[in-house]
Amino acid sequence: MAFSIHEKEDTIVALATPQGVGAIAVIRLSGKESIKICNKVFKGKNLEKQESHTIHFGTIRDGERVIDEVLVSLFVAPKSFTKENAVEISTHGSSYIVNQVIKLLVRNGARPAKPGEFTQRAFLNGQFDLAQAEAVADLIHSDSEASHQAALNQMRGGFSGEISKLRAELIHFASMIELELDFTEEDVEFASRDDLRVLVEKLLRVVEQLISSFDLGNVIKNGVPTVIAGKPNAGKSTLLNALLNEDKAIVSDIAGTTRDFIEDEINIGGVIFRFIDTAGLRETTDTIEAIGVSRTQEKMKTASLILYLFDLSDTDMVEINRDINKLENLGVPFVKVANKTDKAQPTFIEELKGKYPDTIFISAGNKENLDALRERVLELVNLDKFKTGNTVVTNIRHYDSLIKTRESLLDVLGGIENEITNDFMAMDIRRALHYLGEITGEITTDDLLANIFSKFCIGK
Amino acid sequence: MAFSIHEKEDTIVALATPQGVGAIAVIRLSGKESIKICNKVFKGKNLEKQESHTIHFGTIRDGERVIDEVLVSLFVAPKSFTKENAVEISTHGSSYIVNQVIKLLVRNGARPAKPGEFTQRAFLNGQFDLAQAEAVADLIHSDSEASHQAALNQMRGGFSGEISKLRAELIHFASMIELELDFTEEDVEFASRDDLRVLVEKLLRVVEQLISSFDLGNVIKNGVPTVIAGKPNAGKSTLLNALLNEDKAIVSDIAGTTRDFIEDEINIGGVIFRFIDTAGLRETTDTIEAIGVSRTQEKMKTASLILYLFDLSDTDMVEINRDINKLENLGVPFVKVANKTDKAQPTFIEELKGKYPDTIFISAGNKENLDALRERVLELVNLDKFKTGNTVVTNIRHYDSLIKTRESLLDVLGGIENEITNDFMAMDIRRALHYLGEITGEITTDDLLANIFSKFCIGK
Repeated sequence: MAFSIHEKEDTIVALATPQGVGAIAVIRLSGKESIKICNKVFKGKNLEKQESHTIHFGTIRDGERVIDEVLVSLFVAPKSFTKENAVEISTHGSSYIVNQVIKLLVRNGARPAKPGEFTQRAFLNGQFDLAQAEAVADLIHSDSEASHQAALNQMRGGFSGEISKLRAELIHFASMIELELDFTEEDVEFASRDDLRVLVEKLLRVVEQLISSFDLGNVIKNGVPTVIAGKPNAGKSTLLNALLNEDKAIVSDIAGTTRDFIEDEINIGGVIFRFIDTAGLRETTDTIEAIGVSRTQEKMKTASLILYLFDLSDTDMVEINRDINKLENLGVPFVKVANKTDKAQPTFIEELKGKYPDTIFISAGNKENLDALRERVLELVNLDKFKTGNTVVTNIRHYDSLIKTRESLLDVLGGIENEITNDFMAMDIRRALHYLGEITGEITTDDLLANIFSKFCIGK
Repeated sequence: MAFSIHEKEDTIVALATPQGVGAIAVIRLSGKESIKICNKVFKGKNLEKQESHTIHFGTIRDGERVIDEVLVSLFVAPKSFTKENAVEISTHGSSYIVNQVIKLLVRNGARPAKPGEFTQRAFLNGQFDLAQAEAVADLIHSDSEASHQAALNQMRGGFSGEISKLRAELIHFASMIELELDFTEEDVEFASRDDLRVLVEKLLRVVEQLISSFDLGNVIKNGVPTVIAGKPNAGKSTLLNALLNEDKAIVSDIAGTTRDFIEDEINIGGVIFRFIDTAGLRETTDTIEAIGVSRTQEKMKTASLILYLFDLSDTDMVEINRDINKLENLGVPFVKVANKTDKAQPTFIEELKGKYPDTIFISAGNKENLDALRERVLELVNLDKFKTGNTVVTNIRHYDSLIKTRESLLDVLGGIENEITNDFMAMDIRRALHYLGEITGEITTDDLLANIFSKFCIGK
C-alpha cells in the first residue's frame, strides 16, 4: 500500500471546494478522530453525541476568539464517503477563514490531506474499486455530456462489473486447472480443453470490444480532433470565434455558473470538438495554401473531422473540385462549408448547389446558418455512439491493462492449441487475471496507487 | 422593497461555492417550494418527509438519466439562513454537473438567484439587520485578521447593538416631545430641555467616536497605505518582492489553501499593508530622485507609513541627513531602512548606528533581517488599535449616515439653545432617527437595498 498503517489512521483535513471567493467554502475531515477534533474547536451542541447525517449550527473558536459561524455536517463510520468518521464544515467563503480553520484543526490533531487521499481511503476501505475511484476524478473534470456519462457510468460500477464478470469466469477455470495440477498423476481433466477454448474466445471478444472502445473513449474524454481547412482569408478564425462565442453564450445564461472554457474546444450537442492547431488560424501571417501542403495534410490525417471552408467571393469551381478531390482521397469525414454568402454571386451559389448539394452555406461574420453546420457536424461524428449505454474505456491505464490481458489470453489460446502442460497454462491464466485485477484494484502496488491518487486534487 | 411580492415568493437557486474544479460543489435553493422542487429530481428517500438539519444520499436524475450522486442537506423553515425552506445539494465539483443540476432545477420551478438574494431574504425575513447583512459580504472578502475581526464583530451584531441603543434613547425622547405637541395649549413639558441636551450631547459623543473610527476601519478594510521611498537602485522592488514572497510562503504551507494574493498587499502580523504606486518601483526606468520631487512628496503625504530605504554602498551621511530631515518635516511615521549590509563599509554602518540608532539594517537581496523590519513596522502602526474589541466603522455607507446623524443632532442642540418650538425640534429628532435607522435597515428604500445587495456575489 502507498500509505503506512500510521498514515491511514490519521485524521486528515482539506478544503473540498474550489479556491477563491464564494458564498460558502466546505472543509472536510476524515478519520477516527474527526468528530472529536472538530468538537474541540466547535461551540454549539456536543458533536460527539449527535447522530450521523445531521447538521449543527455553531461557531468555530480558537480559545475565546470566534473565527466563524458555521454549519457542521456529521457522518459516522461507516456511513460516509471514506467509510470513516467524517465531518464537513461549511464556513463563509473567505480564503482567510478557510486558512484559519484548517490551521486550527491541524493544531488540534488533524493532518493536511494529500492529493486524492479521501478517495484513496474510500477505495482502501472498500467503498468502491480502483476503476470507480479513477472515475471520480474523470467526473470532476468532465465538461461535456458524453464525457460526463462515460465517467458516471464508470463511477457507478458499469465498467467494473464487466471486468469482474470476466475475472470471475477466468478464476473458475483457473481453479479447475490448478486442481488438475494436484491430481496430475491420475491424469484427470476437471477443465475440458474445449470448454476452456470457448471461454477464452468469448473473453477475448469482450476484451477486444473494450480495447476498441478506447478510440471512442479517448475522443469522448479529449474531444473530437477537428481541423478547419481553407485558404488564409476564407474566414477560418471568424468561424471558430463565432462557434466559440455562441457556445459560451448558451452556457452562461444560467446565473452563477460558467463552464471552464478551453480555447479551441467547442461543445456541440453534448460532444466536445477540439480544433487542432488553431493558433495558426488566429494569425494573419498564415500564407500557406491550406490544402496541398504536406505538413497540413499530415495534420488533417490525424483529425476525425475536417471542415473544408471556402470563400464564395474568392474561390472558383476548379479550385473547389481540386480541393474536394484531395479531401476524398484523404479518407477523413469532411464538411463542405461555403462562407460569405453575403458577398457571393447568386449564379455561383446555384452552380455549387447543383454540383455539391450537401454544401453548407454560411456567413461566419454574420453568424448565419451556423445551426445547419452544427447539425451536419453531429451527423458526421455519429452522435449515437456517444450516447450508447455500452461501456467505454476512457482511461489509458485501463487500456494498457486490457492490451496485456489480451496478450495473456492469446497465450492461453496458443497453449490449448499446442497442448502445453497445465502448469504453463495456469501461469498464463494467472497473468490474465493479474492484468484484469489491476484495473479494478484487486491487484495493486504502492507505485500504482501513488501514481493514480497523486493526480487527484487535494480535498478529493 | 426592491423585490416584488411575487419575486419574494419564488424559490431561488444558485451555486454557493466558487467557480472552478474542486472535489465538491454546493448548489443552494431557498423558498417555500425548495424541498418539493429538489424532491422532484432526487431519487432516494422522500425529502418532503424528512426532518430539518438532516443529510440524504441519492441521485439527481433528469428523467431516467442520472446526472450525479449527491448529498442533500435539508433546512425546514424557519430554521435556515433565509428563514425559508432551504436545500443544499453537494455534487461532484464539475462545472458541467453544476450547470446540468441548476438547469434541471430551473425547469422544475426554481429561478436563478440574483446577486445577494439569499442574504437579502435573510434580512427581509428578520434573520439580521442591514448592517449585519453587509458584514456577511465583508467577511467573505476579509483577508487579514484585523478586517476579519471587524467584519465578524459587525455580523454578530456588535455595531448594530450600539446603533439600536442610540436609537432607542432618541425614540424615547422623541415620543415625549411629540406628546407635548398634543398638549401644546396647556404648556406642559414632558421632556425636560436640560435632560434632552444631556442626552443629545451624549449621543453626539458616541456618534463622533464611531465617525472617527472610520479612519481605522478604512485602513483595516483596505490596508495601511505605505510608501517605499528611496533612490532608484536602493532595492525598493527587491524588498517588496522579498516581503511578498515570504508572506505567500507562510500562507501556502497549509495544503489545499492559498490566499488570493493582491499584488502589492502584504500581510504583516495580521495587518494588511498596501504599497502605493509600486508599479513604478518595478520598472527600472524610474529616474526620479525619490525624495524631493513634489509629486513624490504628495504621494508620501497620503501614506500612513513610509519605509525610507537607502543603499549602504551608494549613499553618504549628507544625503541621509538631508532625506531624514525632509521626512521629519512631512509628519508621517517612517522607518529608516539601510539596505545592502553585505556591500557596506563597516565603519559607515557604525557611524549610522551612532547617529540613528533606530535604523534597521537589512539585505533585501539575501532576505536578511526582514523580521526586524516587520517588527518595527508593526510598532509604528500601533497594532493594539487593530486588535481592539471596540466597534469600528468600516462601511462608507454607515459613515455617511453617521455624518448626517451628527448634523441632525447638532441641529437639535442648536434648537435647544435657541428655544425653538417643539414641532421643529421633533423634525430634527426624526431626521436623526431616520439616518440611524438607515444603517440597520429599519428605514430602507428600494434603491438602497438594490444598491447594497447587487454588490454581493451570486449564491450569497
